[in-house]
Amino acid sequence: MSELTQDQIWMQRAIELARLGQYSTKPNPNVGCVLVKDGQLVGEGYHPRAGQPHAEVFALRDAGDAARGATAYVTLEPCAHYGRTPPCAKGLVEAGVARVVVACPDPNPLVAGKGVQILRDAGIQVEVGVLEQQAHQLNLGFLKAMATGQPYVRLKVASSLDGRTAMASGESKWITGNSARLDVQHWRAISAVVITGIKTVLADDCQLNVRQLAIHQDISSIVQPKRLVLDRQGRLPLTAKLLEQPDSVMVMGPYRAELEALGVIQLEVQPLDQLLRTLVQQYQLYDVLIEAGATLSTAFLQQQLVDEVISYVAPTLLGRSARAMFQAEFERMAQQLRFKLCDVTQFGDDVRLRLTPSQETL
Amino acid sequence: MSELTQDQIWMQRAIELARLGQYSTKPNPNVGCVLVKDGQLVGEGYHPRAGQPHAEVFALRDAGDAARGATAYVTLEPCAHYGRTPPCAKGLVEAGVARVVVACPDPNPLVAGKGVQILRDAGIQVEVGVLEQQAHQLNLGFLKAMATGQPYVRLKVASSLDGRTAMASGESKWITGNSARLDVQHWRAISAVVITGIKTVLADDCQLNVRQLAIHQDISSIVQPKRLVLDRQGRLPLTAKLLEQPDSVMVMGPYRAELEALGVIQLEVQPLDQLLRTLVQQYQLYDVLIEAGATLSTAFLQQQLVDEVISYVAPTLLGRSARAMFQAEFERMAQQLRFKLCDVTQFGDDVRLRLTPSQETL
Repeated sequence: MSELTQDQIWMQRAIELARLGQYSTKPNPNVGCVLVKDGQLVGEGYHPRAGQPHAEVFALRDAGDAARGATAYVTLEPCAHYGRTPPCAKGLVEAGVARVVVACPDPNPLVAGKGVQILRDAGIQVEVGVLEQQAHQLNLGFLKAMATGQPYVRLKVASSLDGRTAMASGESKWITGNSARLDVQHWRAISAVVITGIKTVLADDCQLNVRQLAIHQDISSIVQPKRLVLDRQGRLPLTAKLLEQPDSVMVMGPYRAELEALGVIQLEVQPLDQLLRTLVQQYQLYDVLIEAGATLSTAFLQQQLVDEVISYVAPTLLGRSARAMFQAEFERMAQQLRFKLCDVTQFGDDVRLRLTPSQETL
Repeated sequence: MSELTQDQIWMQRAIELARLGQYSTKPNPNVGCVLVKDGQLVGEGYHPRAGQPHAEVFALRDAGDAARGATAYVTLEPCAHYGRTPPCAKGLVEAGVARVVVACPDPNPLVAGKGVQILRDAGIQVEVGVLEQQAHQLNLGFLKAMATGQPYVRLKVASSLDGRTAMASGESKWITGNSARLDVQHWRAISAVVITGIKTVLADDCQLNVRQLAIHQDISSIVQPKRLVLDRQGRLPLTAKLLEQPDSVMVMGPYRAELEALGVIQLEVQPLDQLLRTLVQQYQLYDVLIEAGATLSTAFLQQQLVDEVISYVAPTLLGRSARAMFQAEFERMAQQLRFKLCDVTQFGDDVRLRLTPSQETL
């Protein structure tokens, strides 16, 4: 790997700052900002939570007068519109920064290029695209949703080496170990909504919320994901554990007054691709995590609605009568669903593969 | 990790040297030797091939007079018996080395401690056990066979993420990519014998020999593994590709005069555990690699005859009608075959897991 430029080093710091908001800014993006003058850090900030100031505001406050003549490193193009806060592009102009380095252009049609334009019109030198790829990873859901109207969909699966997720009886505790299961909490915590099927709820009475994180962080400070149950026949029992926090529960199924009374958001039964668009357009839910049984997971995979598979493989063999993780029936190798391997990480005795769909045909 | 001592650093060099013989010393162990005087390397050597001199001989020749007063680092206890070569322990004494550092004691009943005794009797200071664990890895088959009479058994499997090894039709080219398939050649090359089933030979007409290695090494310089076909009904066709080199073929099955005529070694039909003992005791085959279909692989696994699973997982889903890698039928999680994960390595888009059986019950 070649050495990083000074711009890249500072942008890396801005990306690290942005990540501090990863569990709490939803539906807003994670953004970090660093102000540098004469090679010295003079201010930094990140967006901590929707409704609170943007990263640039915190960094400018931190720098005070030192912002004048400084270079600002921002992971996402500064906003140009009046939302809950005044536009950050204007804030940078008023503070007198001399140069702005941006990682990702903002794909939001309300902003797209306007932030950069405001800066350039004010005579500020602007550079876009420094560490864009890394910064893009911070906001996969937000960026995809703004660009396409679809959320970024992760599908989590935990299976044995022989591709099984449970015994025929349903017994499945535990295929993966503590460390892998703790890692799953991270993916829930960065998600806006966790989707599961009614069968999983009936079998496991799961809560699908975030209970513990590997990094030291107060769970009460994070924004919990919604839990969406696909329940076409309206079978969700009112005694289900996930209804203990009914305001974060969504159900796709026939209308039920008793759910309404609990404050549960109810969605009409609709095809999966349309459901995903609904989540973005009506509910600002940009990062979707699917934690479901084989039937529902297979449906999402076969309809090519999955952007990333997060696959935990446990070093165990469960045998051929155990439940298969993937239900499709293919006759020829040419039909296989093939992925690109993005990352391999060991968690205790388990391995996590991060996979994205491959266009490759064999 | 703590820093290495000087002894460990020199032993590491001896281990690297030993590894140069990894494809060609069978049935002899891989051994490396380094001679050091006043902190300087004065001689080094390794055992290249059965019938050629041992590592110590090469190192002493390399050092010449400089061996006098030197410290010798040897990965395996120097031999004390007259075999095809005079005992190395005597050689070290005659050369006047002052100190000998050994990684692994020799488990061979002909040597066991005698080498060290010869050295100590001659007033040489001896230390045993430096980097023993690493050095042990060099000779898993030899060391296990000498200690127990059983070979070290590796089982290779290549499967999809959903645990399938082929489509229902048998179509399986290719689940894993080039890089993983090249890695398999290494495991064949360090093996004394590759075991497969007649079904695999009939389906793939495989040769199971070493054709290419990732490291630059002349294939003709290595000692090819024997190929052992389990063929209880005597179905191996005389036109099978692996009979093109009949002298390295072994068949377990009913006696056939036409195989005898080709020079094929024929073994009586016997239980798998007894077969493994036979390979050690009658044929000096200490490192066994199983490359077979699910039926035979499952049999070896269920009879707990496997020391290590080398599992290549390809990032693809083949569906539930494809062939399962593991045929046993378990009803309860408690019956699962669980492993310890020793190593994870990425090969292109595939992942290799090295697994050893776990004693853990869940």
